Amino acid sequence: MNSKPFHAPRPVIAITMGDPASIGPEITVKALAEKETYEICRPLVVGDACMLDKALKIFGLSESGLNIVTSPKEAKYQHGIIDIIDMGLVDRDTLAVGRVSREAGEAAFRYVEKVIQLAMAKEVDGTVTNAINKEAINLAGHHYAGHTEIYAEYTSTENYTMMLAHEGLRVVHVSTHVSLRDACDLVKKDRVLQVIRIAWQACRDLGIASPRIGVSGLNPHSGENGLFGTEEIEEIIPAIKEAMSEGINVTGPVPPDTVFSGARGGLYDIVVAMYHDQGHIPLKLVGFVYDQKAGGWKSVEGVNITLGLPIIRVSVDHGTAFDQTGLGTADPSSLKNAISYAARLAGTRISAGSTDMS
Amino acid sequence: MNSKPFHAPRPVIAITMGDPASIGPEITVKALAEKETYEICRPLVVGDACMLDKALKIFGLSESGLNIVTSPKEAKYQHGIIDIIDMGLVDRDTLAVGRVSREAGEAAFRYVEKVIQLAMAKEVDGTVTNAINKEAINLAGHHYAGHTEIYAEYTSTENYTMMLAHEGLRVVHVSTHVSLRDACDLVKKDRVLQVIRIAWQACRDLGIASPRIGVSGLNPHSGENGLFGTEEIEEIIPAIKEAMSEGINVTGPVPPDTVFSGARGGLYDIVVAMYHDQGHIPLKLVGFVYDQKAGGWKSVEGVNITLGLPIIRVSVDHGTAFDQTGLGTADPSSLKNAISYAARLAGTRISAGSTDMS
Repeated sequence: MNSKPFHAPRPVIAITMGDPASIGPEITVKALAEKETYEICRPLVVGDACMLDKALKIFGLSESGLNIVTSPKEAKYQHGIIDIIDMGLVDRDTLAVGRVSREAGEAAFRYVEKVIQLAMAKEVDGTVTNAINKEAINLAGHHYAGHTEIYAEYTSTENYTMMLAHEGLRVVHVSTHVSLRDACDLVKKDRVLQVIRIAWQACRDLGIASPRIGVSGLNPHSGENGLFGTEEIEEIIPAIKEAMSEGINVTGPVPPDTVFSGARGGLYDIVVAMYHDQGHIPLKLVGFVYDQKAGGWKSVEGVNITLGLPIIRVSVDHGTAFDQTGLGTADPSSLKNAISYAARLAGTRISAGSTDMS
Repeated sequence: MNSKPFHAPRPVIAITMGDPASIGPEITVKALAEKETYEICRPLVVGDACMLDKALKIFGLSESGLNIVTSPKEAKYQHGIIDIIDMGLVDRDTLAVGRVSREAGEAAFRYVEKVIQLAMAKEVDGTVTNAINKEAINLAGHHYAGHTEIYAEYTSTENYTMMLAHEGLRVVHVSTHVSLRDACDLVKKDRVLQVIRIAWQACRDLGIASPRIGVSGLNPHSGENGLFGTEEIEEIIPAIKEAMSEGINVTGPVPPDTVFSGARGGLYDIVVAMYHDQGHIPLKLVGFVYDQKAGGWKSVEGVNITLGLPIIRVSVDHGTAFDQTGLGTADPSSLKNAISYAARLAGTRISAGSTDMS
């Protein structure tokens, strides 16, 4: 990830605090304690100030202080002070931390709603989301599978897809939260072509001038010429040919078990994966490191980007980790990666003059 | 991989030279040029001496010489001399290297047949196979999908499975060379249970006293309680429960996109994967390293072990690499790993007194 300071203006990135009973407040404080975060962007938290204050105390940083604002224009964006739009939705004394609750779910949902509104109104250049708990938001009456569906509805977006990224390894998915049988049915020429185009645009948005796209097969060995599975012949190859005719630099179908090694080694800027785990397994293998001695995840890197939206949305690639809440040990790497990716995407848009943010 | 010298007797490992027109002869010479190979086992090549001699010359090692034998008993097993059972099947002057041919396919097949016969007769303790080309063996009239099917037929084995391993990451598969749709159909309680048992035995054979087995789900997030896919509820969980009742230490279904990170971090000794790419993607991601500057694969590590056979069979985890043949640049890492794994498996069998090799 290119982490050089962007030339002015640094993009304003709104960061949701995530479920207030989760590690979200702690990793937010950790990520914003780093000077580099302020070198690449102007970060603004949307959450509950009382929970962020509690997190600051865990790290003995309470003197750093918070700057409570009501709009992005009021923020200072100075390292050492955390700017926050305080939604005032939870009570630090009664909220059960490390647990699923309706109260926390309602708050987490409202933070997301707020950053989407800020981005749609062009008051911020991009958004980053900490983890929410699906059960908690559902208890609060918000029936969404996750952030992606909330963003899609609030921005009236129909064609979107999930991109995962860790360092130079990037992957977009033809389908995500469906059964593996249904995922096979969703490998259709039009959808594959659409995702190739989205992948190309995503690379361009990241500042890659001539994106090289690797398209995975669906079946083992890409089906070995129809010997085990025909989706490559009937759907994937026709989509690749059409993408080529549009001038896109695309290779495939590449056998699923070598395309990611190739991408990691620099053969492709992005991989089009045919289903959720085809892309998630390699990304989480390189991004998630389990520490047996400590009995927990030592590092959870990698980010999740929703492509196809009118606004920028990058998310951490892990959950609420309720079991680690309050310990001060949670790893902020994924959040830092997410802020960095959002800043890079927003920086490219600003350079291209596609937003009128001043 | 534990590479400490085994206490005497070092196991005798028969190594096929692979397709004689491939990188097989070269990487065999490279692997056998290493003293460590002789510290862990007594290696014996089965192939064509003329091609091995040609490979020796590429490395300026022709003075090392070959010891042509007709049976394992005649071999010297001394570092610096390569013992080979010379099948005399190809002509070094007329064989087209780096190409698919009937002649090379016939020879490659016969080497495999020979090592199986040696192992079944207990003249060797284990076998290691270099890569063969499916098209070439088919041109020669041997209609098999690959090594595994040849071994299964020649040893009259019905219940076998493929294990991949790279360092501490090990995976066995519920199915392999079938379409992804068919792979979904093959996730049945009895088969999953059978593979859990095979995985447990494989770990025991590797000297792991109390194997810890992680069983992957089939669907994203293991189906989220039936939300996307029911195979976890109907087939995988019942198999896990039955394995537990047999006293096997088994965990799952673990979401497919975290089970491999966990295994790599030491949570499990082996992972039961539900289909080919679920296991192959993570193994090849850690084992295969592409070098963009050199425009080729820098390292291809990892091994392929056929479990359930009455004899030991470990294979390289790459193909014939015809495009690299004759250059002397091919990486012998996977072959070295394979010899090491075979020696470890054979060493455990010898220690347990399950073979009568003297």
